[in-house]
Amino acid sequence: MTGQGDFAEKLDKLARLAVHVGLGSVAGQEVVMTAPLDAVALARRITHHAYAAGATVVTVLYNDDQAVLDRYETAGEASFDAAPAWLYEGMAAAFRSGAARLAIVGEDPSLLSGQDPAKVARANRARSIAYRPALDLIARAAINWTIVAAATPAWAKAAFPGLAEDAAVDALWQAIFKASRADGADPIADWAVHNANLRARCDLMNAKRYSALKFRGPRTDLEVGLADGHIWSGGASRSENGIIYNANIPSEEIFTTPHRAGVNGTVTATKPLSYQGTLITDISVRFEGGAIVEAHASAGEDVLRRILETDEGARRLGEVALVPHHSPISNSGLLFYNTLFDENASCHIALGQAYAKTVQGADMMDGPGLIAAGINQSLIHIDWMIGSGDIDIDGIAADGAAEAVMRKGGWV
Amino acid sequence: MTGQGDFAEKLDKLARLAVHVGLGSVAGQEVVMTAPLDAVALARRITHHAYAAGATVVTVLYNDDQAVLDRYETAGEASFDAAPAWLYEGMAAAFRSGAARLAIVGEDPSLLSGQDPAKVARANRARSIAYRPALDLIARAAINWTIVAAATPAWAKAAFPGLAEDAAVDALWQAIFKASRADGADPIADWAVHNANLRARCDLMNAKRYSALKFRGPRTDLEVGLADGHIWSGGASRSENGIIYNANIPSEEIFTTPHRAGVNGTVTATKPLSYQGTLITDISVRFEGGAIVEAHASAGEDVLRRILETDEGARRLGEVALVPHHSPISNSGLLFYNTLFDENASCHIALGQAYAKTVQGADMMDGPGLIAAGINQSLIHIDWMIGSGDIDIDGIAADGAAEAVMRKGGWV
Repeated sequence: MTGQGDFAEKLDKLARLAVHVGLGSVAGQEVVMTAPLDAVALARRITHHAYAAGATVVTVLYNDDQAVLDRYETAGEASFDAAPAWLYEGMAAAFRSGAARLAIVGEDPSLLSGQDPAKVARANRARSIAYRPALDLIARAAINWTIVAAATPAWAKAAFPGLAEDAAVDALWQAIFKASRADGADPIADWAVHNANLRARCDLMNAKRYSALKFRGPRTDLEVGLADGHIWSGGASRSENGIIYNANIPSEEIFTTPHRAGVNGTVTATKPLSYQGTLITDISVRFEGGAIVEAHASAGEDVLRRILETDEGARRLGEVALVPHHSPISNSGLLFYNTLFDENASCHIALGQAYAKTVQGADMMDGPGLIAAGINQSLIHIDWMIGSGDIDIDGIAADGAAEAVMRKGGWV
Repeated sequence: MTGQGDFAEKLDKLARLAVHVGLGSVAGQEVVMTAPLDAVALARRITHHAYAAGATVVTVLYNDDQAVLDRYETAGEASFDAAPAWLYEGMAAAFRSGAARLAIVGEDPSLLSGQDPAKVARANRARSIAYRPALDLIARAAINWTIVAAATPAWAKAAFPGLAEDAAVDALWQAIFKASRADGADPIADWAVHNANLRARCDLMNAKRYSALKFRGPRTDLEVGLADGHIWSGGASRSENGIIYNANIPSEEIFTTPHRAGVNGTVTATKPLSYQGTLITDISVRFEGGAIVEAHASAGEDVLRRILETDEGARRLGEVALVPHHSPISNSGLLFYNTLFDENASCHIALGQAYAKTVQGADMMDGPGLIAAGINQSLIHIDWMIGSGDIDIDGIAADGAAEAVMRKGGWV
């Protein structure tokens, strides 16, 4: 248990980090923030630092897990094919006029686990379609954006099931501060060092020009072909509006774009995935020619299958990311049940939409051009974890020669 | 002090009333709700009843007094000419596609009283311009909309300054339940009776076809010319999307449209006005040819003057409303410091925008046509209270004959 003064100081450091490292700069910009209702304290500190840094208007859109659940239990059938298009179109309009985007995550990881998977899939699909214009602007980094986390009671109970609620919330906050590198004397300086390290790792991988990566481990034997002209990226990047920002706090990954038709073999998840309130555990899939042809899960399999049916690109990969098994998050030994943290403790792949900026020239391609270049397109982008201390990764050169990249989850 | 069970029951009745009487019907509609962060409990109950009544998506936009105040204290100069246009345009888009609109009010009545009036005026003007397209749709009742109230600590402390916070919040809730006619055995039936009474009063006044009303009382001698073809309206009305709704809960008024050039004389406010967080007390103004030519207030005069400078229509009247001095709200003897309640305890007038639906044929007129017909146009619509137990009102017939309408604040 930490004292309130100590907590307030760390919360303030996380809020400063979110504005000055996450968004990078907000001078003269609007900020569009989303946050769980239980994250008011962090949202207010971020709002404060955004105004202090010159933001013009900070708008916080609060989401309420309880109202989401009530909808599933109370609303009529027509509700599950509906989404507030006006709000998502409004967000896209805000981004087009230069607004920065900040998301505070902290939702209950298994909020909808007891709900009808068909309704969950329909509602997610309706939401994905409505959110697409806004997501496109985020995916191509038209503006600076970032995601940070706040400990909420429901999430804390999932992450620390053995603790009473207050103690669990406190423990989760401490884990968030530590994983986010927000608990040092000067977190902004710490992030500058961290970003330099990630940049050096990207430079190293970019010099290799591998044509594929090969993952081997328990129940995993997967070759992930990389897109021609792929670029390894990680940590800070520059948005189209010219601002150096960090999309995720924390972030330990370097990532790039796989070839949508070049993925073959089997892979098994090493951590459960919480997707839109449903917990999907022990995902195991087989790829052929880039597409998943077989998929299993020990829980949430129905939701997983419906995800894969979202569209043609939903069963193909849009991202592959490498994270050493000995990252600070991984070393904590915690399972967060939240992708922002769990994906930064583990190598991962993402189903669905690819980031155009991790392929040379992709920002100039249209939809058919992107597909032709092997850059996957989809309404969804769902990361899931395939790394552990048992995974070996080889880089495959253009001539087919294999080279060790990671052994037992650590960089070679 | 009431028990929690009793409170939960009354809160639920108010929420049902908001959906089934306020909005009338929400089947197949989206609902766009705004609410203070301290009104989560009521927002959740309303959300529940809206989904149960067939709403497709209920979106709650929470506003945070603390963040608003922080903006005034922290943001740079450019902030005060900015507004989240994307959000207000989004709301207008929602209304155009058929969404219902529900507002929960409960803000701190003097939140911004210590802030620079110039900044307050600039921010309000920027907001008014951005909100105009949405307000136009509300003003012409394109869709069903309603306003209800929730007791919040800051508001409760203003309304019950002698009580401790918890007791003040409880007292304000009870006053809201009572004033909103939500505390009976069957509030929906009570509202049907109440609406029939208001309708009968409107029919009576509409049969008179007065050309003007004359208000006389302490420091008040005012003639309010009525627009040609004016219609007295009150209680339930029908929106363009065909739904019978009640715009205000509570509502005790009958109201119509004055002639924008036909107002002459002096009038003194009988209650303070809380406008966008500033308390304006003892308003006293003089009209000539419809326009305010002299304006005073004992507090907030600077804000009042800036309101009047918003645009050409801001110093003219858009509404005149009659409320008997012995309405339930007035009988409570409470000063709520909230227009929704105080205007329903007192005859009032509104500066700025007129409601087109209270003039025959106005819905077919364009901007210049409305002005030519004496129907005022403005970015603002601000009600303020001029009624009391000391006010006499005469109706002036077309031939100049005077007839008693109200004496000592009561219907003749």
